[in-house]
Amino acid sequence: MERIMDHLAHERSKAQFSVEEMKIIWAGSLHAFQVSDRIARLVASDPGFRKDNRAVLSRKELFKSALRKAAYVWKRINELALSEEEASWLRFYVDELAYAYIHWSIFVPAIKGSATEEQQQKWLPLANNMQIIGTYAQTELGHGSNVRGLETTATFDQETDEFIIHSPTLTSSKWWPGGLGKVATHAVVYARLITDGQDYGVHGFLVQIRSLDDHFPLPGVTVGDIGMKFGSGAFNSIDNGFLRFNHVRIPRNQMLMRVSQVTRQGKYVESNVPKQLIYGAMLYARQTIVADASIALSRAVCIATRYSAVRRQFGRPHEDQNGNGVETQVIDYNTQQSRLFPLLASAYAFRFVGEWLKWLYTDLIQKLEANDFSTLAEAHACTAGLKSLTSSTAADGIEECRKLCGGHGYLSSSGLPELYAAFVPACTYEGDNIVLLLQVSRFLMKTISQLQTGKKSIGTTAYMGHVEHLIQCHCKVQKAEDWLNPSVILEAFEARAIRLSVACAENLTKFATPLQGFSELSPDLVEAAVAHCQLIVVSKFIEKLQQNIEGNGVKQQLETLCNIYCLNLIHKHLGDFLSTRSISPKQASLASDQLRSLYSKLRPNVIALVDAFNYTDHFLGSVLGRYDGNVYPKLYEEACKDPLNDSIVPDGYHEYIQPVLKQQLQNARL
Amino acid sequence: MERIMDHLAHERSKAQFSVEEMKIIWAGSLHAFQVSDRIARLVASDPGFRKDNRAVLSRKELFKSALRKAAYVWKRINELALSEEEASWLRFYVDELAYAYIHWSIFVPAIKGSATEEQQQKWLPLANNMQIIGTYAQTELGHGSNVRGLETTATFDQETDEFIIHSPTLTSSKWWPGGLGKVATHAVVYARLITDGQDYGVHGFLVQIRSLDDHFPLPGVTVGDIGMKFGSGAFNSIDNGFLRFNHVRIPRNQMLMRVSQVTRQGKYVESNVPKQLIYGAMLYARQTIVADASIALSRAVCIATRYSAVRRQFGRPHEDQNGNGVETQVIDYNTQQSRLFPLLASAYAFRFVGEWLKWLYTDLIQKLEANDFSTLAEAHACTAGLKSLTSSTAADGIEECRKLCGGHGYLSSSGLPELYAAFVPACTYEGDNIVLLLQVSRFLMKTISQLQTGKKSIGTTAYMGHVEHLIQCHCKVQKAEDWLNPSVILEAFEARAIRLSVACAENLTKFATPLQGFSELSPDLVEAAVAHCQLIVVSKFIEKLQQNIEGNGVKQQLETLCNIYCLNLIHKHLGDFLSTRSISPKQASLASDQLRSLYSKLRPNVIALVDAFNYTDHFLGSVLGRYDGNVYPKLYEEACKDPLNDSIVPDGYHEYIQPVLKQQLQNARL
Repeated sequence: MERIMDHLAHERSKAQFSVEEMKIIWAGSLHAFQVSDRIARLVASDPGFRKDNRAVLSRKELFKSALRKAAYVWKRINELALSEEEASWLRFYVDELAYAYIHWSIFVPAIKGSATEEQQQKWLPLANNMQIIGTYAQTELGHGSNVRGLETTATFDQETDEFIIHSPTLTSSKWWPGGLGKVATHAVVYARLITDGQDYGVHGFLVQIRSLDDHFPLPGVTVGDIGMKFGSGAFNSIDNGFLRFNHVRIPRNQMLMRVSQVTRQGKYVESNVPKQLIYGAMLYARQTIVADASIALSRAVCIATRYSAVRRQFGRPHEDQNGNGVETQVIDYNTQQSRLFPLLASAYAFRFVGEWLKWLYTDLIQKLEANDFSTLAEAHACTAGLKSLTSSTAADGIEECRKLCGGHGYLSSSGLPELYAAFVPACTYEGDNIVLLLQVSRFLMKTISQLQTGKKSIGTTAYMGHVEHLIQCHCKVQKAEDWLNPSVILEAFEARAIRLSVACAENLTKFATPLQGFSELSPDLVEAAVAHCQLIVVSKFIEKLQQNIEGNGVKQQLETLCNIYCLNLIHKHLGDFLSTRSISPKQASLASDQLRSLYSKLRPNVIALVDAFNYTDHFLGSVLGRYDGNVYPKLYEEACKDPLNDSIVPDGYHEYIQPVLKQQLQNARL
Repeated sequence: MERIMDHLAHERSKAQFSVEEMKIIWAGSLHAFQVSDRIARLVASDPGFRKDNRAVLSRKELFKSALRKAAYVWKRINELALSEEEASWLRFYVDELAYAYIHWSIFVPAIKGSATEEQQQKWLPLANNMQIIGTYAQTELGHGSNVRGLETTATFDQETDEFIIHSPTLTSSKWWPGGLGKVATHAVVYARLITDGQDYGVHGFLVQIRSLDDHFPLPGVTVGDIGMKFGSGAFNSIDNGFLRFNHVRIPRNQMLMRVSQVTRQGKYVESNVPKQLIYGAMLYARQTIVADASIALSRAVCIATRYSAVRRQFGRPHEDQNGNGVETQVIDYNTQQSRLFPLLASAYAFRFVGEWLKWLYTDLIQKLEANDFSTLAEAHACTAGLKSLTSSTAADGIEECRKLCGGHGYLSSSGLPELYAAFVPACTYEGDNIVLLLQVSRFLMKTISQLQTGKKSIGTTAYMGHVEHLIQCHCKVQKAEDWLNPSVILEAFEARAIRLSVACAENLTKFATPLQGFSELSPDLVEAAVAHCQLIVVSKFIEKLQQNIEGNGVKQQLETLCNIYCLNLIHKHLGDFLSTRSISPKQASLASDQLRSLYSKLRPNVIALVDAFNYTDHFLGSVLGRYDGNVYPKLYEEACKDPLNDSIVPDGYHEYIQPVLKQQLQNARL
């Protein structure tokens, strides 16, 4: 029997805080910790959820194995009679993309958000039992970001009381919806509503696309998979699809009619449900991406941190406990720390801002239901901006973690390649990150122009009310320790953000038209939006620390992480801070000095800080990130499992290698 | 029959320069253009080289198909009696990683560089005929960057006149060599030479690992594949392997003895061949990575540029030639230009610095052969730094290009996912990019300390001789156009580079020991090294433009690209330029203004500028990057080829989907 040994025990013994208490902070509450911990163990111990070597499978094998796992998930949810909360944790820890994700996270919420009470009563029970499987068909082959440009039509036929769904061009083919290619029986289809010869713009329709008897596409429906995507495993386990309609008829009452409807007579009428409510619901998906970003980044950071403590390279060999000469742990190199520790800090920062954003969303929906639309624009800009900032940082951060693992990070068994491939599309879906930042910048420009009219800036833009002070204030840092003062940090970030915005606003006036100005200055506007979003993350981290945080040493660690997060951003965006004179070159240099000592301070705690994520080895799916640090024997074991090692002499030797070696290629059939 | 139409013809008609002349500049010479063009067409038209849908294959299928293609390559090279130059172009355009790459580019050069004349006479003919297939076994499971830490031993046994090759630990297993896992018959193995009880450090040995009769591993040899790697396709078509020795004996004369040898009596003797020559040869691989970086980046840029001209989103629909309302071409957005055009400029910049580096390498080897070692350290630092800078920029740039293609960039058929997965390991192999930059910074610190002793700085460090001027000079820019002056740009980059280096040198003196200082300041040292390397690229681009460049409008385009390359770097590293006071905030803002007008100036030429790379559609392997711009019908066609579309109802429906829909999971076997 294998002797179980914790190669990282020494690291764990150095921690200066209570890991158990930190786990609760990370989870958000004791309850959240307990439920998620229980389900994580349940998933990890069930052989039916084993993560097989997905990377080696062909497309068909991979897809079939994902179908099996999705069915098994649903079976276990029912057998164990899991609550909705528990079921969603189960799907989370199973960690394999499948049609069920789209069904539960996009299709069902779309019905809830856009269908009338009556429609919901008909369709939700079917969806909740998975008697129908749904997808969400919005984007088209030629139309992604610009929803208004969609070409699919839904033309009302008064004679039969039906809509005729049609794809008039090749570029109008629906393209990308997950679960569509091979599985979904129904789809929420977005199409231009045409009645009485008039185009009322894009609306949602519930369309059955496959027979519930034999799974064949219904007449007039052409549907299939759009092919392989980035990476092995990752989104290839899901059937993103295309969908074309040739005059497919659906009953009028399958238009999603919560906000507007078409009458029996073909008249377009708006209901008394505020449109803003639908618009608000759109923020839901973006808000979840912020949470996803902190999870994806924290997984990568956990892997890279543990492996950096295991791996040794160079350095003066010093003696270990047994008197053997050993090289330096990679994690003790300052170059490693200066790349890794800010990512660890970002994972925590995004976790907290994600928590806050979840609260903001709930608050917003309550306000909208009470016909209070005053915070919608701000909440929209804030959600869009944070989705963009956190997903970009997380995607880049995962790749950085992979590189921090050296060559072995390139192996599938490190778990990092699939983690990247599975997360990076979040930079593009639910709004391209650059397009979203431009929306944020438009909101910022509007807020600035309204300041002059005396309108009060609210929420995350409240700081803009202090524009006069922020435009002329001077950073008070005189020695490195001054950079530990939260109000000093906050003011520097506020000054940088507002000065960039104000400069854009001033430059915009130099152009003939606002449109031209926005176009020409768009790269600057994007940078102003980034500065604003980073300020939000910084301020929410600082606010979190002003709460009562229990647990031995926990708060101190979070303070160190917060300071690292902020000072590293200053270093990374130094051009902004200096060009706006928010800080001086001397102060920048003091920030670097402070950052160095923060890294040393954090160093003994980093293994415990990634342990606090409470990820099982099953969920991490990484040989390099194993809890016990037993990396090398397990890398070897994993390698041996590759199908190429099934035989000593590879398939193809006789046809393709031997003729080369024997110089007998002339007659070889190749 | 399909009507052939060039959807980008209008773009091509706008170009203000001769594309044909630019092709020659890009290729390096008329001869290089003609040979490469001929071979590219030959490969593209040969069905045996078709790029099948690699991404959908299982590991075994993929590997077998790569074996076939490698054999076919060798067959065609022999049938067509290609010259060495032509053969290497053929392998380049076939564009599939296989064992042959390691054999030709690493194994054969290693023999040439490290074996004696006599040894070469024995082994080179076998290798040149591929009667043996070789690999290069240096890195070990526990040892990558630190070659001195390798554990494999080669112990001389005087009794039998043999070396005993042995893997004493698990971590000493050779790990990563390409072609090793399933194919290679021989390996250059690096091991610690031990004779007479003394360890003489790491040396190379030629070891047969597989039988030439039946391909089985020889006694004492354990060998296999290390498993799946990043992405689908990419390096998975190659058998990176592991290798363990259990007291394997080889004749003494299979030590590679050009520089040092062991006599019959077990005495270690150095030959009169300078060690530096071997060391110089190590630069070869790094130098080729710079060339690879410009190729990989230019492929991605070509795809993203063409697709950005095809794709339309948002904007006020304006009428096309046929009077239809169309959206704005994505390439006309400033956010797209500010991300894409600097990458286009970088591709050209890296091409020219790569060309120069090739010259430097040849020059260096000639000097070394004449026992002139005076430029070795500078050439080493320069090559290491440029390898690091160009490979990091190219890898990030490929991903940026993918994101610039929106959602469709995530499809394998865009070609971009595989391009990234295949290129990104260049950031790690042949020296981790951060480790290399630290080496550069050590060289810079040494150069600075030698300035005080009056030693003349040479080559790419010549500017450091003007340290006194550069430390106190002021940038002369007063209006945006002043940023078009090459000497102004050069001085700004020189000032930034030397000021960062000097600041590091000064800060180093504040630490108790140089070792501690280097460790603590390593992140700053890395930044100083980057500044130095960017200066090299900038200065070589400027030097190129001082040459006689023919062709209508060609030089003007290159000037615009050079200016974009430089000014974008200033923008990206503004913190450096401002904190060192190399430029002022006002001058930074003028640089941004100038950059904007350079983008407009470049815009009409960008399609022609990527056409000048002269890549065939076969080589690009991208639906989005097609020469004719006929993107959407071809995306649809490619999607239909996915194996999931072989059947209408997917494999797994009856077992895993129907039971879900019919609520019959209780008894399902999952």
